[in-house]
Amino acid sequence: MMSTGIMITSTANVKVKRLAALQKKKRLRKEEGVFLVEGIRMFREVPPKRVSEIYVSEAFYKKERDTLKKVLEGTGIEAELLSDQVFDYVSDTKTPQGVLCVVKRKEYTLEEILRCGSPFFLVLDNLQDPGNVGTIIRTAEGAGVTGIILSADSADVYNPKTIRSTMGSVYRVPFCYEENIPDVMDVLNGAGVHTFAAHLDGKCDYDEADYRHPCAFLIGNEGSGLRKEVAEKAGEYVRIPMLGHVESLNAAAAAAVLMFEAARQRRK
Amino acid sequence: MMSTGIMITSTANVKVKRLAALQKKKRLRKEEGVFLVEGIRMFREVPPKRVSEIYVSEAFYKKERDTLKKVLEGTGIEAELLSDQVFDYVSDTKTPQGVLCVVKRKEYTLEEILRCGSPFFLVLDNLQDPGNVGTIIRTAEGAGVTGIILSADSADVYNPKTIRSTMGSVYRVPFCYEENIPDVMDVLNGAGVHTFAAHLDGKCDYDEADYRHPCAFLIGNEGSGLRKEVAEKAGEYVRIPMLGHVESLNAAAAAAVLMFEAARQRRK
Repeated sequence: MMSTGIMITSTANVKVKRLAALQKKKRLRKEEGVFLVEGIRMFREVPPKRVSEIYVSEAFYKKERDTLKKVLEGTGIEAELLSDQVFDYVSDTKTPQGVLCVVKRKEYTLEEILRCGSPFFLVLDNLQDPGNVGTIIRTAEGAGVTGIILSADSADVYNPKTIRSTMGSVYRVPFCYEENIPDVMDVLNGAGVHTFAAHLDGKCDYDEADYRHPCAFLIGNEGSGLRKEVAEKAGEYVRIPMLGHVESLNAAAAAAVLMFEAARQRRK
Repeated sequence: MMSTGIMITSTANVKVKRLAALQKKKRLRKEEGVFLVEGIRMFREVPPKRVSEIYVSEAFYKKERDTLKKVLEGTGIEAELLSDQVFDYVSDTKTPQGVLCVVKRKEYTLEEILRCGSPFFLVLDNLQDPGNVGTIIRTAEGAGVTGIILSADSADVYNPKTIRSTMGSVYRVPFCYEENIPDVMDVLNGAGVHTFAAHLDGKCDYDEADYRHPCAFLIGNEGSGLRKEVAEKAGEYVRIPMLGHVESLNAAAAAAVLMFEAARQRRK
């Protein structure tokens, strides 16, 4: 059996109401220790052990039986069938693809993140844009980042928009939220991690520093940059040289430039 | 006189209706040859000659008289005063900053873009996300790009979200829309511009190519990448090496990595 066989056709259904609430409420997602993923791609890449529920639209169920079967295999989970209209109601996207999973979170501690082989970290200080955070996680996986530490006041990684922007990297890049980022910086510096902040006061260009050692990049808020108390803890300030009248790059673009320079050096 | 002195207090006002329509309708913006910019930063950076109208909220008028005076100087323009409520109505943002300008477009032709000193171009093929297009324009200015050519089916640069994401670079980076990108590629190749496509089939890593000559990067659609007929015209395929399970980067992140590698080489 791939589905429970009974189709939910009302938005007043208690399961439907809960899904809609999970889409919107960070607190509820946290309480349940889950997040929602939508779309066929995110569905295909979900680690089977972490799937807790699957909802499909009638249209999806008819068209994508094989994909569904493959992902369900060995999970012991049956998909819940929603009418297309009800699916549209619970979806966070404008053009729903007809599949939505409730996925169990995998939490890391700072200690676990620090214990990796060749440390390459990102520290995100008060990043606010969910799309930026998602894009950074995706870029980070591509660049070989081993862990991401976010300040507690950063955007929620489990926000549906963030999840989408990660294109699946959220399943694979270890991350944790920490209340006190200056303390985290002390821990990193104490552990021999070279910490770099992209900063207008940087004395050397970002491509002149050596990132082949254990290293971490600090990325600050989209509008106001790094908080002073965080920037102060950085071992080195580096500058991304700008032409034209540009003062700074978008946070995700700056992070991409820095991470791929580190990846470039580490490949050589 | 800094303002006309009469405050518009009704959303039924004909000027207000037109502004609301300009926010939403690409076609109308095009017909009038204008775009809207919001926020104090975009307002400060607007080239005075290109301002055609300025609207301010009552709150902004009281608080930012000096800024307003400075930008209006020599333009012969008087700001129109809107009640805070009416301003909220015409604003495209959730937390309006109280200033909105109607700015005249500056159109470039492909020929003008090609005539620059040391060519460094971007070709955006069917980019769809307004935020991506805006971020790319901002990053491009910082990297020293001399002109951007967008396929006619790409997102509208004059979309309010795109404008915001450029952080002012939209005033300064020459760009044009072209119907036939394969033809543009022929023109570029014929003019001795080295054209590079980031592609999974790339034979060399992106940092192994030489970008110190006249060059252009091709960036494709967020979901489907470069169209075959465009990719075929690229002089060289380069690869951005990926770790983990990442197939490709977000278009704006990939563009940032490529453009700043070119900028790095051009600085040396």
